[in-house]
Parts: sequence; C-alpha cells; structure tokens
Amino acid sequence: MANEILGTDVVVQIGIIVKDIEKTAKEFAEFFGVDVPQIIETEEYNKTHTEYKGQPTKARAKLAFFKNFKNIEVELIQPDENPSTWREFLDKHGEGIHHIGVFVKNIDQKIENLKKVGIDVVQKGDYTGGRYAYMNSTEKLKFILELLENY
Amino acid sequence: MANEILGTDVVVQIGIIVKDIEKTAKEFAEFFGVDVPQIIETEEYNKTHTEYKGQPTKARAKLAFFKNFKNIEVELIQPDENPSTWREFLDKHGEGIHHIGVFVKNIDQKIENLKKVGIDVVQKGDYTGGRYAYMNSTEKLKFILELLENY
Repeated sequence: MANEILGTDVVVQIGIIVKDIEKTAKEFAEFFGVDVPQIIETEEYNKTHTEYKGQPTKARAKLAFFKNFKNIEVELIQPDENPSTWREFLDKHGEGIHHIGVFVKNIDQKIENLKKVGIDVVQKGDYTGGRYAYMNSTEKLKFILELLENY
Repeated sequence: MANEILGTDVVVQIGIIVKDIEKTAKEFAEFFGVDVPQIIETEEYNKTHTEYKGQPTKARAKLAFFKNFKNIEVELIQPDENPSTWREFLDKHGEGIHHIGVFVKNIDQKIENLKKVGIDVVQKGDYTGGRYAYMNSTEKLKFILELLENY
C-alpha cells in the first residue's frame, strides 16, 4: 500500500557514510564482483544550495553508487569537514548506514506532510536533475529518511 | 548479476536496533499507516543454539517485522542484556540500522565463501523454519551482512 505521508512504498537507496571512499568502493566492488563505480563529488554551494539545520553550508561529499542489487541502490558517502548530516553522523557514530532513501513526487508537499507529524528537514539541497531532503526522522524511525525527487 | 560469494543480488531485509520495541513499532505503524505487527520474542537457547563470537549465549531479542514496503522488509530488534551483536550495537552506537539481510541457499557454503575473503561469523542461530548468520563484514562493507536460510 502506498504510504499516505510519502506517497510511495518502495525503498530505493541505502546510504552509507565512509571515511575513505576510494578504499571502500574498491572493497565493495571486489566483494560484489562488479566494477568500481565512478567516484563523484557533489557540486559547490552555488549549484547545490545546501542547507544544514536551516543554515547554508559549504559541505560537499564524495559519492559512489552501487547498482548491483536488483531491488535497491547502495550509495557510499565520504563527507568533508564542513557541517552536514554526513559529517555529524561520522563524528557521532563512525562509519555505517546513514539513511534510507525514497523517490517522491512533489517533495515540498511531502516535506509538509512530514512536518505535520513532527519530522522536519535536517539537510536539503539540489543536484543535477533533482533535489533531496534528509529528514530528522531519527527519534521516531531510528534512521534518517531521505526524500529524493528527480525532475 | 548474481554475486559469486552470496549467490544472490537481492536485499530482503533492513534490521534496526531499538531500545523500546513497543514504542517504536507503534511509531512505525502510525507513520507508515499500517497495523502494529505482532511483537515476538526469540526462543530460548535450547531452540536457537545462539552463538556470539564463537560462544553459546542466552541472548534473546524482541522482534517486529514490517512488511509494508514493496521491495524490502524492516525488522525492529530490541536486545536483552546478554552478549549479542544486537546488544553490542546498541551499547556502541545506540539505536539505528544494524544489518542488511539476504536470503541464501546452502548457508554453510556461503559462510565458507565469506571466510575466504576474510569475513567470519559474528553470531549465528536457528529460528523456527530456518537459520541465520550475522557476518563480521563491518570493516569491509561498513554494515553487518545477515545471511538467512529458510528450509
């Protein structure tokens, strides 16, 4: 059944915070028997408009996407030193699973739905072809929910 | 592509360690618009034969399974005080995503495959209708991989 708040019942992504993305991407690729994916860096602020806890941040991250699972994508994320949900997670918890991502339509409406149940945006930004919002769902759901909307 | 080591490329489960399963199961059910699932307790040692780090353990856990996502199951786990991977995770990291689970065939063979790449069993046991093994994959993969085999 489609969730009323999110409008979807499909998990599309598991996001993992790592310290050394080159090393972990290589380990992943070896383990899963696939090529090492391209490691990309998120763009600068003037393109991403990243906000963390309501404030603009210069935070960037290196990313690698593993698409070898049939039903879910794994994203590796190496944060930089600037304030972000990625950096906060690494400092508090160390490496590990940071978020579960879902694709939504009309992300602003979905954010409003979440606010109504007490879950606010912790970080948001733009990427080429879409937008994302990490939600402060940890208290209720014990994980960070990421909303993703591709245009 | 089917992974050579695991023989599967489908993630079936995300396991989340929680402190208060009644509370979190209720929050989950409300959020996702589904009924609160039955909360079950794992059986005693004489049925589960649970081993943690190679030693028998009396550890038990309360579990709740959410099957509202189309492509993946979410398992909530509340550990007891006895030594287990669940307890260790809660003590070290607090609540959060503990493991990613895959169904395998011939779990003993898959465990051997994993040992060959330096990943050993951290905890294993029986449940009604099947067996599981949590693998010490954290260093390589940054998450605990759970192998599940139903008979």
